[in-house]
Amino acid sequence: MAENGMKALEEKHHRKAFGLAAKDTSGILSPFIFSRRANGDNDVTIKILYCGICHSDLHTAKNDWKGTVYPLVPGHEIAGIVIEAGCNVLKLKIGDTVGVGCLVGACRSCEKCVQHKENYCPKLVFAYNSIDIDGKITYGGYSNIIVVDEHFVVKFPKNFPVDRGAPLLCAGITVYSPMKNFELDQPGKHIGVVGLGGLGHVAVKFGKAFGMKVTVISTSPWKKEEAIKSLGCRCFSLSAKHALLPLILLLKSEGKMIMVGAPEHPLDLPALPLLLEGKILAGSCIGGMKATQEMLDFAGDHNIAADIELISTDYVNQAMERLAKGDVRYRFVIDVAYWSLVGELLL
Amino acid sequence: MAENGMKALEEKHHRKAFGLAAKDTSGILSPFIFSRRANGDNDVTIKILYCGICHSDLHTAKNDWKGTVYPLVPGHEIAGIVIEAGCNVLKLKIGDTVGVGCLVGACRSCEKCVQHKENYCPKLVFAYNSIDIDGKITYGGYSNIIVVDEHFVVKFPKNFPVDRGAPLLCAGITVYSPMKNFELDQPGKHIGVVGLGGLGHVAVKFGKAFGMKVTVISTSPWKKEEAIKSLGCRCFSLSAKHALLPLILLLKSEGKMIMVGAPEHPLDLPALPLLLEGKILAGSCIGGMKATQEMLDFAGDHNIAADIELISTDYVNQAMERLAKGDVRYRFVIDVAYWSLVGELLL
Repeated sequence: MAENGMKALEEKHHRKAFGLAAKDTSGILSPFIFSRRANGDNDVTIKILYCGICHSDLHTAKNDWKGTVYPLVPGHEIAGIVIEAGCNVLKLKIGDTVGVGCLVGACRSCEKCVQHKENYCPKLVFAYNSIDIDGKITYGGYSNIIVVDEHFVVKFPKNFPVDRGAPLLCAGITVYSPMKNFELDQPGKHIGVVGLGGLGHVAVKFGKAFGMKVTVISTSPWKKEEAIKSLGCRCFSLSAKHALLPLILLLKSEGKMIMVGAPEHPLDLPALPLLLEGKILAGSCIGGMKATQEMLDFAGDHNIAADIELISTDYVNQAMERLAKGDVRYRFVIDVAYWSLVGELLL
Repeated sequence: MAENGMKALEEKHHRKAFGLAAKDTSGILSPFIFSRRANGDNDVTIKILYCGICHSDLHTAKNDWKGTVYPLVPGHEIAGIVIEAGCNVLKLKIGDTVGVGCLVGACRSCEKCVQHKENYCPKLVFAYNSIDIDGKITYGGYSNIIVVDEHFVVKFPKNFPVDRGAPLLCAGITVYSPMKNFELDQPGKHIGVVGLGGLGHVAVKFGKAFGMKVTVISTSPWKKEEAIKSLGCRCFSLSAKHALLPLILLLKSEGKMIMVGAPEHPLDLPALPLLLEGKILAGSCIGGMKATQEMLDFAGDHNIAADIELISTDYVNQAMERLAKGDVRYRFVIDVAYWSLVGELLL
């Protein structure tokens, strides 16, 4: 019985795939052959063209957040082409240019799912290092193909530069969603973007497209020129380190500070300044699928894409080292398609 | 010129008053004779009947928050009777039973004032230890009379037990306002009240009147019975100390935690749990005048009043000592009127 069950499970996983995986806490990535589930009725199979490198990939590869299951195939900023579509698939067809972000599954019935906030579903399945609906560990986008329920796939607008679009699937929605939810999308309002990196530079672009007055708050003086000249920020403010208090003091009364990246250690929270002016501190994690599609459509309408360094798979480990030092303008994106051509010959 | 100016200022301050004042950082209160401004066109003069003792009174009397100007007459939970009304006064008349809370002045024209949130006006004048519009330090409600612009005076509903109503002017509005602002007033929703003291016990009453499921989170096991039996809480949860993390973990996703009291030291804020489920942490300070009147009307409709220990002025210093130890069920209220009778003979 158990053996039959195992066999049935194996049969469901009969689509061969290959990718780059970390095999241990060194985080070093090397080639890895594995299997994807067969394309289900609600699934699409996507040939991956590009995959962005998010700092979470690095943290997970090195088991910084614990709970990493090796081998680990990272990647949740995925852009590709639909090459197969299940019989129930409605919104996508073969040939569509699509994106997959951090989420590949959710219960679809809880309060949060019904509110289009699958990102807060307790049964959320992440694109990698997560337990999928079939009980297997998910593998991410540093690979040639991926099989995903169409609900978790978004379409790129026409003529979108998808290499520069891939980072929007995580970095983009992570900043866009709280900007929308907390009414930080209103023309004329001031917004401060703390940290000018992968997320920050996209937040600046959205802020400007919303008509806001954007200030960058950075610990890196050398970023001033690019913030003002290239990204068109109104203001650049240098801070010694990103402690909470000076940031809270920058808020106007009833101002909101939304954290989308988690520092390693607990922060010192001075309660009184928060209290006296009714300030709000909130966390936000990615965004739902409806908001992700909306974000991509908005990005298409306003020519918003990430500024990237396109790299080959040979360079991934070096890119990870540079990322650890914050040395990237502003996102590495892996050119997966070229490598796939070679890889497919090996399968 | 300067002398004339000083004299004019003095003339404006020709209403004799007496009260209890702290004279130094010992915080010990003793009789004090001073003057109030003459009743202006927009002012009412209130004969004070009752004044609640807020923990802020104690902190300020002892200069815990620095900036205390001695002599200090504390008190911002004031209930009394209008005994004089200026020619422009519209909403009040002599004989009305009224309340004055933390606010006695604001610019009336800034963004926050226009939004009926005078509590966040940068030119806010507090009921005591604040610089008034005439440049003098304000004196609070531990006194026989007070002169206040009618905008900062609210009316008690008919037949309201004003001794038990006085604490609503600070404790009541401080919890009512964020419950309204953050949609924590919806039937069926869960609310946790951290700390069952002057503010907490009123928050429980409002929560129940809103139709919410109320849980008290307390460090004092002996409060369980009164929480469940007398106040009708649904649940009582015991906590070792009020650290942020366990409280944040109690929130559902996108749940909100509003801080209305400031601990002495910065809190350890673990950012990740806030992030992963999109939780919100906010500060809130008192409430605006419109909300204060609304709160009193709501309290009148739902028979909400504070549970108090009514004390005479002789007992105020002992009450302060007991308050410092948290030994009060749940608010001390000073019976000012009786004492005034005696005091007036001395003037």
